[in-house]
Amino acid sequence: MPNTASFLESAVALADAALEQALPSADTAPATLHQAMRYAVFAGGKRIRPALVLAACRACGGSDAACAPAMAAVEMLHTYTLVHDDLPAMDDDDLRRGRPTCHVVYGDATAVLVGDALQTQCFETLAAAGGPAVACLARAAGSRGVIGGQQDDLEAEGSTVDDSPACKARLERIHRGKTAALIRASCELGALAAEASPETVATLGRFGEAAGLAFQVIDDILDTTASVEDLGKTPGKDAACGKLTYVAVYGLEAARAEADRLRDEAVAIAQSFGAGGADLQSLAGFIVDRGY
Amino acid sequence: MPNTASFLESAVALADAALEQALPSADTAPATLHQAMRYAVFAGGKRIRPALVLAACRACGGSDAACAPAMAAVEMLHTYTLVHDDLPAMDDDDLRRGRPTCHVVYGDATAVLVGDALQTQCFETLAAAGGPAVACLARAAGSRGVIGGQQDDLEAEGSTVDDSPACKARLERIHRGKTAALIRASCELGALAAEASPETVATLGRFGEAAGLAFQVIDDILDTTASVEDLGKTPGKDAACGKLTYVAVYGLEAARAEADRLRDEAVAIAQSFGAGGADLQSLAGFIVDRGY
Repeated sequence: MPNTASFLESAVALADAALEQALPSADTAPATLHQAMRYAVFAGGKRIRPALVLAACRACGGSDAACAPAMAAVEMLHTYTLVHDDLPAMDDDDLRRGRPTCHVVYGDATAVLVGDALQTQCFETLAAAGGPAVACLARAAGSRGVIGGQQDDLEAEGSTVDDSPACKARLERIHRGKTAALIRASCELGALAAEASPETVATLGRFGEAAGLAFQVIDDILDTTASVEDLGKTPGKDAACGKLTYVAVYGLEAARAEADRLRDEAVAIAQSFGAGGADLQSLAGFIVDRGY
Repeated sequence: MPNTASFLESAVALADAALEQALPSADTAPATLHQAMRYAVFAGGKRIRPALVLAACRACGGSDAACAPAMAAVEMLHTYTLVHDDLPAMDDDDLRRGRPTCHVVYGDATAVLVGDALQTQCFETLAAAGGPAVACLARAAGSRGVIGGQQDDLEAEGSTVDDSPACKARLERIHRGKTAALIRASCELGALAAEASPETVATLGRFGEAAGLAFQVIDDILDTTASVEDLGKTPGKDAACGKLTYVAVYGLEAARAEADRLRDEAVAIAQSFGAGGADLQSLAGFIVDRGY
């Protein structure tokens, strides 16, 4: 799909430009903190969340400029969760996107502050853009969304993993919180930036929910099947520490089938936007078919 | 000063009610996370920052109800910085407000998430109240404000402490960032909640800056003179780890004189609000004369 590749490429360029604009320069005092924030953010990420903001905004007829602050905001929020996740107190990961993690390079204390500051900058950037965006993202990112999912994930670690209804319910809660909440909000933010109707915002939220759940199912699959070179991080860690993953509960085949089902659900919503939904459709395909 | 005591008491009651309203209930899933957030927030704090929001709002003729979300927001923001500060990766403190710190009770990983979630909830609560409050607080709380001051503080640890111009400049930057930025923003948020003019918001900002700097000078003094019972946390730690404090650079007597000077500056601004500034005046006095 040449369109997907060129869309993803332009989304990365626009996301990086928006982040460059949103982040304090590397020589702003305290310089080490701002260098470390930039180290974490400019690490060759796929920029999937900003790409979803952009695609959703375009699908609603909004301009690329209108959604630039939201593109930067979702990536800063995502990056802060990664920086904190990688801390020795959390997952204790030394490798992320093929490079030493933030705390390995800058120390644990600065890495805590880098994550904190990226979250604050995310809301400062969104607030400057105005409208209901701050409320939308804060709701998704908080203790009943992203952070709640991480806590559920922590608590599930080491517990019995089987295909019982309790395990399945917990898994779904983890996936909805940890991953889908922010991907859903990215799509909603794009629609909000385009000043779409509440109905359209909700429709894009449903697209994001399906795409977000698919994203996490694929992450679970890749953790068991991909190499460290493909992932740029240590694979197999989830299984090794007894994490509750889609593959552990349902098996590899059912996981793949579920990802395909969610992709089809997302694609159907994207198609309802006609030609304007082409980038959304590309993204839904990319999320499920990526190898890293 | 009986007025000061009764004002502080009513401010604590209003702050606690606003926090009760803003925080998810303790049985909301994931329950451990929400219990831990409440453990950190409801720990018998002095609620100085919400009290400043309230006093500034009243000075500008605003209602107590108008500033309730901002009162909750500044305290959640302040609490998140304490929870992260106390982490083993940061200051490694086991005692806060006379109780075991959040990470001691709930573990390091959950304490990271508690701090993250309190920051998110802070912006969600402020966003629901509308207006320019999110931008005001995010600017104060970010890498060029509170978090920047903490990074400066980290980097100063163990460096040479003397009365050179470089040390003095660094000390002022730490105090402005680490402490004064949020106290200043608390006063500005109270004025914004009362829909005060930009000039009045700026005047209350100057009040908050003076009060905030005084607050940190007094903190530095108390760290060398108070007992663990008075403070509810371990005293002498700053001096022990070679932190850059006002007392270390200027000595105890000059520190006391500077606190008095800043108090007088704040009181003069409070007096310019006439009878409406009485609570602000009380707070400026309390900040400088407190023994804990």
